[in-house]
This record gives sequence, structure tokens and C-alpha cells, in this order.
Amino acid sequence: MSQTKYAIGVDFGTESGRAMIVDVADGRELASAVQVYANGVIDEKLPGTNIRLEPDWALQDPNDYLETLKKTIPAVLKESGVDPADVIGLGIDFTACTMLPTLRDGTPLCFLPQWRDQPHAWVKLWKHHAAQPEANKLNEIARAQGFTFLDRYGGKISSEWFFPKAWQILDEAPDVYAAADRLIEGADWTIWQLTGVETRNSCTAGYKAMWSKTEGFPPDAFFKALDPRLEHIVDEKMLRTISPLGARAGGLTAEAAAWTGLRPGTAVAVANVDAHVAVPAATVTEAGRMVIIMGTSNCHMVIGTQEKNVPGMCGVVQDGIIAGTPGFEAGQSCVGDHFAWFTENCVPAAYEQAAADRGVSIHQLLEEKASQLKPGESGLLALDWWNGNRSVLVDVDLTGLLVGATLLTKPEEIYRALIEGTAYGTRMIIETFKVYGVDVNEIIGTGGLPNRNKLLMQIYADVTGLPIYVAEAAQIGALGSAMHGAVAAGAAAGGYDSIVDASKRMARLREEVYRPDPAAHAVYDQLYAEYATLHDYFGRGANDVMKRLKALKASMRAGA
Amino acid sequence: MSQTKYAIGVDFGTESGRAMIVDVADGRELASAVQVYANGVIDEKLPGTNIRLEPDWALQDPNDYLETLKKTIPAVLKESGVDPADVIGLGIDFTACTMLPTLRDGTPLCFLPQWRDQPHAWVKLWKHHAAQPEANKLNEIARAQGFTFLDRYGGKISSEWFFPKAWQILDEAPDVYAAADRLIEGADWTIWQLTGVETRNSCTAGYKAMWSKTEGFPPDAFFKALDPRLEHIVDEKMLRTISPLGARAGGLTAEAAAWTGLRPGTAVAVANVDAHVAVPAATVTEAGRMVIIMGTSNCHMVIGTQEKNVPGMCGVVQDGIIAGTPGFEAGQSCVGDHFAWFTENCVPAAYEQAAADRGVSIHQLLEEKASQLKPGESGLLALDWWNGNRSVLVDVDLTGLLVGATLLTKPEEIYRALIEGTAYGTRMIIETFKVYGVDVNEIIGTGGLPNRNKLLMQIYADVTGLPIYVAEAAQIGALGSAMHGAVAAGAAAGGYDSIVDASKRMARLREEVYRPDPAAHAVYDQLYAEYATLHDYFGRGANDVMKRLKALKASMRAGA
Repeated sequence: MSQTKYAIGVDFGTESGRAMIVDVADGRELASAVQVYANGVIDEKLPGTNIRLEPDWALQDPNDYLETLKKTIPAVLKESGVDPADVIGLGIDFTACTMLPTLRDGTPLCFLPQWRDQPHAWVKLWKHHAAQPEANKLNEIARAQGFTFLDRYGGKISSEWFFPKAWQILDEAPDVYAAADRLIEGADWTIWQLTGVETRNSCTAGYKAMWSKTEGFPPDAFFKALDPRLEHIVDEKMLRTISPLGARAGGLTAEAAAWTGLRPGTAVAVANVDAHVAVPAATVTEAGRMVIIMGTSNCHMVIGTQEKNVPGMCGVVQDGIIAGTPGFEAGQSCVGDHFAWFTENCVPAAYEQAAADRGVSIHQLLEEKASQLKPGESGLLALDWWNGNRSVLVDVDLTGLLVGATLLTKPEEIYRALIEGTAYGTRMIIETFKVYGVDVNEIIGTGGLPNRNKLLMQIYADVTGLPIYVAEAAQIGALGSAMHGAVAAGAAAGGYDSIVDASKRMARLREEVYRPDPAAHAVYDQLYAEYATLHDYFGRGANDVMKRLKALKASMRAGA
Repeated sequence: MSQTKYAIGVDFGTESGRAMIVDVADGRELASAVQVYANGVIDEKLPGTNIRLEPDWALQDPNDYLETLKKTIPAVLKESGVDPADVIGLGIDFTACTMLPTLRDGTPLCFLPQWRDQPHAWVKLWKHHAAQPEANKLNEIARAQGFTFLDRYGGKISSEWFFPKAWQILDEAPDVYAAADRLIEGADWTIWQLTGVETRNSCTAGYKAMWSKTEGFPPDAFFKALDPRLEHIVDEKMLRTISPLGARAGGLTAEAAAWTGLRPGTAVAVANVDAHVAVPAATVTEAGRMVIIMGTSNCHMVIGTQEKNVPGMCGVVQDGIIAGTPGFEAGQSCVGDHFAWFTENCVPAAYEQAAADRGVSIHQLLEEKASQLKPGESGLLALDWWNGNRSVLVDVDLTGLLVGATLLTKPEEIYRALIEGTAYGTRMIIETFKVYGVDVNEIIGTGGLPNRNKLLMQIYADVTGLPIYVAEAAQIGALGSAMHGAVAAGAAAGGYDSIVDASKRMARLREEVYRPDPAAHAVYDQLYAEYATLHDYFGRGANDVMKRLKALKASMRAGA
């Protein structure tokens, strides 16, 4: 046993899971390994059957989580050559809300032959959107009956969240609901498999299941108002004890030690969420600095000094990001996805040819061309709602808008306008935070886009007027999970007693920084004012044309 | 000399001129010939010099008009084998306002060595847009001083028109202005060359030079208010006598007979404009039936029962289309141009490949795919202002808008939305006419699009709720000109005494008709209501974001 200690983090994504082993002293990565889920995202047929899923369904197979543990942890141990005795802690992060029904002992219902053909017995992945009717009813009843807990979530919750998904099971498969002794996040279920202990983490409880440290879950009377059979859902199928992030969930069981090659009893942290675990891994454990995970969508996280409701946010949760502080989360539903849509659908053959001739990607070519434009030069402005608006309007029925096109408009101008649109969306979030007293003085970017698109980073700096730093770790989730593993182990075991300490030693920023250009910022002030006017006109009820077009589209398709 | 009589029409376009010889009895085409202008559209350098033109300039060489006469008329005579003695009349139509400065004898200043290097000495083509400052000042002064003649033109006139162009010559080249004994439309100048007689036709005078049959030209006091040197422009450089369409301008001179191979003294009609001459050639000589020339832009023409001002129209002119009636003109600046822009800038390589594999054009492929969509199914709505709005907003600073995009939006959906946007624009024009008491009960389409895009024709029928017929003649301008030539000859010479008579015999519709589908029309009623709301919001001052974006764009480019 050497003096050097190690921690392992496992990041459970949508299509695959990744383990990483790091040096606890400085966060340095020694090895990582990826396992692609055998059943991936289940959105057409239940595996091994001809049972077709309805539109908007998205399921997963919990066995894929176990396989990830069994394959990736031994792989990183082997590749790094680290002695398992020197691995002091293990943490995981997960997509959320990704939930499943299980027996009292944690056995997923979908593992049982009698339930295997029932879609509701499987894991409902975060992007399962078929519980929209339940989400709508839940929001309506909460509003009508004057329950105030929705205020913490910008006034309404999404179909992706825990209780709409649970209610959909009850609505559509009451036998599955009855057979489910437990309803649990995949994140907590995985920790249960590792430790033999059922825990519930404060992050998913707070951000996805309407739990608050001071108020707890919504009262039984609320659940009863939804459906009398839901009245005791919390006591019957969940836990009221919620564990803060970084707490030790338990020690690794002998069985899980055998799966992973780690020592039995190795400290295991309570589960975390992929976005939230990134915050301390991006050096942020205090107020004033926003972390944005910039990828297919943007997730904005900031630590506050006191819990307060900011309209249109995904949520504010005490202990939700950093134990002992309120964590605020906001989001944009469509960022990288937006540019991917554009390059797939709107870029002419001549551009693809030019990119191929030069051996660059179409994104690189567009970025190059768009970089030569000055702010305002395209005459274009976009509302970045191709996938609805998460914050601050919380409205999935909003759609994309582009204004200012002429016969001379070029693809790179539209591309730049789409990037700018997402930057205005981020500024809208930041300004809303500021209005409600939550400081944002600088931004730390992480995720895929900061590594791929320097133009985007500069535009975000110019639009927001804030400097943007970039987190050093490429695998930010796995690093954050390993950090939480080190905190679960504690300082006495060679780890840390708090995530603040772990962050100071294990997380770093790159040297590069995107600083706002004052001239560009001045132009973007004008453009942002135009964005804000259109944002409110189309997003706050003055003209609900987007919703009416979407409803008409749905009715025309239904009539097909 | 046989009993069968013939007429020749020459259609002077932007890039070329086309002559056609037809049988006067039934309008049947015997032969046609095209002459591409040697100097085409002059928008970079003056021919034979290194003198560069400013942006927005567009000139022509009047010698190209003469060459067209000299080449195409002999060609159609030769190809048809018609005896020149049997050609009873000649008519022409032209782009407008396309104007030039000449000496008193009609010699273009640009033919003279001392003026040949001066851009202002050449023909200003209709799409010369560099007189915008003069147009702006003219509109402003007319409004400020309470002149009412602008009411006939939707409240303001365009930089393309006669007096802004004339004023630009005075502003920028007062020596050219002083040397110009005459300022004249290319259309009237060409007739002058053919007949030796200077005439001015009621169509260009009315639609481009603010002349009215009852009020004449604007008063000298108005021109004086623009610039004291303009006070007597009409008397000094124009004619106050305006000839109705179909009137005989004169007989062919010996010189012009030698150019063309026609007999001296052959009847020549006063000039006409390409769009307006199409109306009787599309069978319309009475109220209630709108002719739309559907091409790069749309031009809407309808005959009224009394002269009245309809806001936002290009103009109402007594004798402007059919002698003895008020002709109304409206327009959309961007139709086919719109689809061309889209296919060049926004269609992905996979679509181009699919079209190439199947041996169809990209337009055909898009039309096929878009045809499979139902109204409303795309969820998209476009404001068709990629090139500004001519009617009913008369605002070149408006720009294109697309709303309703999602990550599933496909190119063919955008393509269809752009077609629909232009159809809503046409419906807006028709409804505005109706509100002001000008009936429109059916549409006759002509121009390039009715032959190329059946989907577009059906969408126009479904959106407007009106049946759409298609004019039979492919070369509608040349036919209309030949018809006016037959009227100039008169019935006694084997022609006709009125364009109404000529139209009855020489013009025809195809058998095909696009009838509105009631179910589609009902959906389009909803979509048109959305269009109308956005049209007014962005177009009537509630939110001038389009103008501000355009101004910002101009200032960023100027600062480059």
C-alpha cells in the first residue's frame, strides 16, 4: 500500500457509462474506460420482444448499469496498475430523472419474467416524455390548490420529473405500480447495488422530486389531490431521509467488490447527477461563478448565498450542488443540437464539398466563415427555441424563430445567428438570476462545446459581458464523481472532509480565457434588447402563435 | 398579299429582347427570336472603360435595344416566311422605369463621345436602386407639403421610379442633366426610333411618373420644392401629352423599315410595360379577374370600375392597363427569387444527390416532398419579405421571418412554408383590394412559375380560396405587344379597333384550372390569420426590429 491514494468516478450517460481513476492529491487522470450500453436508449421495441413503444417513450435496461460497473472499473484498475487497496473511494453520477420500479430488495421489476414484457416495469430514461399529461395535471392541480412548492421550480415542473413518471405508471399500469415496492432513481438504485444500502441523494430528490431540505416532499394531501392512490407514495415507495452530496452511502459489498475488483468496504458516496457533479469539478464551490455545461443542451449552475425562488429556473435546492449551500439550476434545451440540426438540414452541397476538399468538418468550415462576421453584420436574430424553452419561460411548446433574412443571407450568417441566439438565451438566464439577487460574475464552461467551438465561446463572452474560463478536465462528470468518492472516504483515509477541499486540490481551469470585447459587447447590448422584446412577445402570451402552430401541426398529423 | 394578317410584338426584358410574329386572327405564334443584349445589365464597369459603378447601380446600353430590333424582327420574318406586306402592326413592351437622357432629336447622351464616360448619361435600368436618397426626400416633401398624388401609389414611391432617377442625375451630374433635352423611358425612346415621333405612353407615365389622366403630372410647385432646378422638368424635358395604350404612335420610318425588313408606314403602337401588356394577353380586359405574373417576383394586376386609392398598391392609373378603365397594380418583391435563394443556400448535399440520382432538379425534388405535406403539418409560418415588401406595406426595409422551427424541421417543410408565405402575401393584397371595393373573383396566372410548379399553384388556390387559371401563351409579353400592334393597325387594316376585341380573339387560357380544396382552405384561413397578425406586428410599427437590424447591419458593414 503506497502513500498515494486514488478515487474512482463512474459517469452514467445516456448511451454509455465511463469510469475514471484519478490521483486524489491532484485529480490527475490515470485511466478511463467506456462501456456502451447493450440496450442503449430503448425507444422502439422492448428488448427481446416485438412490443412496440408509443411515441415519446424512452426506456433503459438497469442491467446495462451493472455491466458498466463490471467492465469499466476492472478495466481502469488494470490499465492504471493501481492496487485496489489504494482506491479509497468510489462515486457515481447519473442522468436524471431516470427512474425505475423495484421490489423491496431492489430487484428491478423488469428483471422478473412476469413483468419483462411490460414497458412500465423498465427504467424510464430522463428523456422519456410520455408523462406530459400527468405533468400538466400536476402543475394545474398544484396551482389551483395554492401549493407553493412549485415556486422553487420556476412555477411548473417537466414531464421528465419523478412524480409525472410515477403517476404515468399508476395511470397506465396500476398492476406495475402496485407491484413496485420502491420507485427509485437509477442513480440511487446503482448505489444500492454497490453498498446494499438504499439511499436517496439530495440532488435528484431536490431537482427532480420536489423535495426541499426545510419542507421535505410535498404533503400527502397534494398527492391525494392528484390521485387518492398516490396519497402515501413517499412513505410507501420512497424514503424521507435524504442524504447530502459527498456523504458516505456505505461500503462496497462483497458481491460488488467481486464485480469491480475493488476491496469490500471501499467508501461509496451517495449518488449525484451528471450536471451537478461537474460544478466542483469545474472549481466552483462558492457563489458568484456560474458553471455552464455546454453540449447538446446547456445546463447552468450557480451557488447562492440563500435559498430564494427565481422565476423560470429548473430549481433551487439546498444541498443540491454543494452541501451546505443552495444550488440553482437553469437550462437551455437546445444548443449543440441546434447546430447539428442546421448542418444536417440547411447547409448546401457546395459547403460540404469545400469542407471535404480541405479536410475539415462542416462545423469547422462554418465556424471559420462565421468568425469573419462582425456582431450585427448578418442582420439576423434568432429565438433559440428549436427544442422549446427550458429557462426562463419553461415552455416546451415554444419553437424556433429567425428574423432578418434577405436574398443575400448566407449559411454562415444563419449559423452565427443560431449561436448568438443561444448566447442571448444564456444572458436572459443570467440577468434573471441577477434581478433576483443571485450573483453571476464569471462563467466556467465545460462539456463538449468549449473544446470544439472557440467562436461560440467568444460570442458567449461578448454577449454576456462576462469572462469565460474553461474547466481543464475533459471528463468532468467522472472527475466530479471521483471527487465525491474521495469526500465519502474522508481526510482520515487520505481523502477530503468536504467537497470544497477536494475541489481546491483536484479541480483546475485551463489557462485560456475568453474575455468580452467591449465594442462587440456594446453591439450585442442592442441585439439582446431586440431578443428580449421578441422573447417576451412570443414567450409570455402577447402572441401565442407558436403554440397554435404546434397544435395545428399535431392535429393535422393526427388526422393523417 | 394574302387575307391572313400578322402582327409582331417585341418584349424588351432585363437581359435580352424577344420578337414574336403571330396570326392576328387567333394569336397563334408563327416564329420567335431572342437577342441577348451585348452589354446586358451594366453594374460593375462602364463598357469599354475602367470606370467602376457604385453599389446599387444598374445601367443599360440603348444600342442593345436597337440591335434587338435589327436582329429579331428580320429573324421572325425569315423563319415564318410571312410577307412583310401582311404585317399590319408592331408593338413593344419594356421593363420600367428604365429611363435615359437624350438630345432633342432622341440621340442618347451616352452615344456622344463627350458623355460616354459619364455613368449618368446611360440608361438607368428599372433595378437601378441608387436613387433611394432622392426617393426618400421626394416622399418626405410630398407628405410634409400635403400633396395628395402619392395616395394613388400606396402613400410612397420607390427609388426605381422616374423622378428619383431624374433627380439623381441632377444631384450627382448637373452637367448631364443640363445637357439632356429629353428624359424618357426606354420604351418610349424605342418607339421614337421606330416612328420618328416622340410619344409617352399612359402606362409608364401613370405607374412610374406619377401622371394621372385627370390631374396630369404633379404641379411645378412640387418639383420646385424638391429642387428649384426641377421646377419645369415636365415642360423642359418630357411631354404633357400622354397616349393611351393601343394607340398608333406612328408609322414605321424608312430607316426603321430598313433595320427590320418591315414596310415603311407599318402601324406602330405606343409603348407598353412588360407586366401590363400581359393582362389582355391573359384574356383579362374587365373587372373582377386578377392577373398575376408569377416569376422572380409577383406582379398583380386588376381592372377596376372606378379609379380609387387602395393603400399599399404600386398604383392605380386610368388607361394604365386597358384604355378606358382604371388599372390597379400591386406586387411582391420576392417569389421565385425566394425559392432560388433557398435551394442555393439551404438545401443539404443529400438532397442534391437524391435529385441528381433521379435526374430531376432540386426544385422538382423539393416540390415532390413538399406535396406530401398537408397544410399546417410543418408547423412553420414565414413572412415572405426576403426582398422587402412591395404591397401592401411598401417597405424595402422589411426582411424575412420564419417561425415554428424545431429539431425535426425538414428542408421541404421550409420550402413549402416559403411558398405558403408568398401565397399569404398575395391573399393580403387581394383582401386589401376587396376592402376598398375592387373585386377579385378569380386569378389568371402567367409567367414562369405556373409552368414549373403545380404545388405552388394549388397552394395559391387553397390560400386565396379562388380558382386559378393559366394563360396559354408562354411568351405572354410578346403576344400582348403584338395584340397592341394589331389594335394600332385598326380593324380596317385587318386588325382590331380595341384591345378588348383583340383579347377575345388572340388570347386564351389553358384547360387546366387549380380549384381551392375547401378543407385545405379552412386550415389556411387559420394560418393566414396568424400571418396577418405577424404582418402587422412587424410591418406596421409595433416592433420595427427588422429595420433596426438592417440599420445595424449597414452600420457594421460601413465600419468595416
